[in-house]
Amino acid sequence: MSDTIAIQGTKASFHDIAASRYFGDNSARIFCDTFSDTFTSLADGTANYALCAIENSLYGSINEVYDLLLRNDLYIIGEVYLRIEQCLIGLPGARLESVIEVHSHPVALAQCERYLDNILPTAIRMEYHDTAASVEMIASLQNKKVAAIASQEAADLYGMEVLAHSIETDAQNYTRFVVLSKLAGGKIHSNKTSLMLQTDNSSGALYRALGCFAKRDINLTKLQSRPVVGNAWRYIFYLDVAASSNDSAFRLAIEELAAQNCQVTLLGSYRSGL
Amino acid sequence: MSDTIAIQGTKASFHDIAASRYFGDNSARIFCDTFSDTFTSLADGTANYALCAIENSLYGSINEVYDLLLRNDLYIIGEVYLRIEQCLIGLPGARLESVIEVHSHPVALAQCERYLDNILPTAIRMEYHDTAASVEMIASLQNKKVAAIASQEAADLYGMEVLAHSIETDAQNYTRFVVLSKLAGGKIHSNKTSLMLQTDNSSGALYRALGCFAKRDINLTKLQSRPVVGNAWRYIFYLDVAASSNDSAFRLAIEELAAQNCQVTLLGSYRSGL
Repeated sequence: MSDTIAIQGTKASFHDIAASRYFGDNSARIFCDTFSDTFTSLADGTANYALCAIENSLYGSINEVYDLLLRNDLYIIGEVYLRIEQCLIGLPGARLESVIEVHSHPVALAQCERYLDNILPTAIRMEYHDTAASVEMIASLQNKKVAAIASQEAADLYGMEVLAHSIETDAQNYTRFVVLSKLAGGKIHSNKTSLMLQTDNSSGALYRALGCFAKRDINLTKLQSRPVVGNAWRYIFYLDVAASSNDSAFRLAIEELAAQNCQVTLLGSYRSGL
Repeated sequence: MSDTIAIQGTKASFHDIAASRYFGDNSARIFCDTFSDTFTSLADGTANYALCAIENSLYGSINEVYDLLLRNDLYIIGEVYLRIEQCLIGLPGARLESVIEVHSHPVALAQCERYLDNILPTAIRMEYHDTAASVEMIASLQNKKVAAIASQEAADLYGMEVLAHSIETDAQNYTRFVVLSKLAGGKIHSNKTSLMLQTDNSSGALYRALGCFAKRDINLTKLQSRPVVGNAWRYIFYLDVAASSNDSAFRLAIEELAAQNCQVTLLGSYRSGL
């Protein structure tokens, strides 16, 4: 039986492309409307895995996914980095200068903000739940003045025309996706660990917490703060560190964090996708 | 001549309420559609000041505003903390159970997500550029099945009815607004400083940078990472620290950061709003 992976989005979405990269072309999909639904599909057993964008090199962290990690008892078992090349897509025969409406996922619209400001300053930007689905939607409208932003793959799937390639603000446009499971991953080849950290309220607490890793030469590759709901102006920190939770240096760091009254939740160890 | 303050939103928006709190009821407004427009109004001299939400205790940081601070050469000269009480607002005589559409700013919709999931699970959520303006819009629609989320003040202004009070997920719902100026503020009563920090790429660089403050007992009240556009997986850090840039300990910390090859940009010293 092949793996079934829950993703937010439809066929030819960037999530779909990332899932094929990690699990192969024969893996099945559960297509979900929201990130929350992908977590639910995994939690209730409909899917074996979920794959979820967590960060983009232009847009930054996807806060909703960090918050879902806090509320759900799931493990990160892998990651995929995907170069995101956004295309402006219209009906066959559409003309770029006639476009008055552009539909796409809000993250894709944000990634292409500079292009839209410069080339289509008066076009109305409409948010849609998925990049590829926005192409399907404009295909059904049959209005040559309405365009979408999505992958070349989505344009091909729906027989649409690419009006402009690589319209993202910066070519350094990569998205990091995490692979989620109800079970912790095997740690044999892991070299990266994600964790959540809450310090006590004392002065310098975050500095001392980071010291547990720094003094053992464990590099921090990401630090993201999120508010603690119900506790105004307190923060939880999401950390990615370049170590496996099997490493003795890592285990000593976690012991020292506990001694500092830090609450630590391990999200998983896995192989770096870079 | 009274002060003119650029804000995102309209009359009776939370920005408007926060501006009155800081500048008094007689201050004038430039109402803008976007955060970017408020920065422009200040930069081109149309407004004397801008006031801009930067963080909410439930939703977290407003990334767009952090990115605007990076791109614009402006100073933070003050801050306001406002308790946000969201109301579900309909036409006079509207019934809560008949509501099929809810319009508001995406942040307000996110703040009330749990209420909407529980009480109005099938109602369609529609994003609008401003809370108070969404009330004006539904007033013009005259459809009792369409509601908005905004302040009590906005309901009163447009003669609408509050269908439910305090619908935010958590009563600890505060928004922090920053006051911006083209000129640095007077530092006499300042006890808080905001700055941007970019470390070099070495292992433990952030830990050493935070040590410049921790070893001088300067408390860090906020740390927010944002991606460096054009340099995938590098980050810039926004810090708020409990010190004035006039303090000698603070000045020594900045000197030590420079010696560590950190790039530091001071955003301003001001009086804490808490």
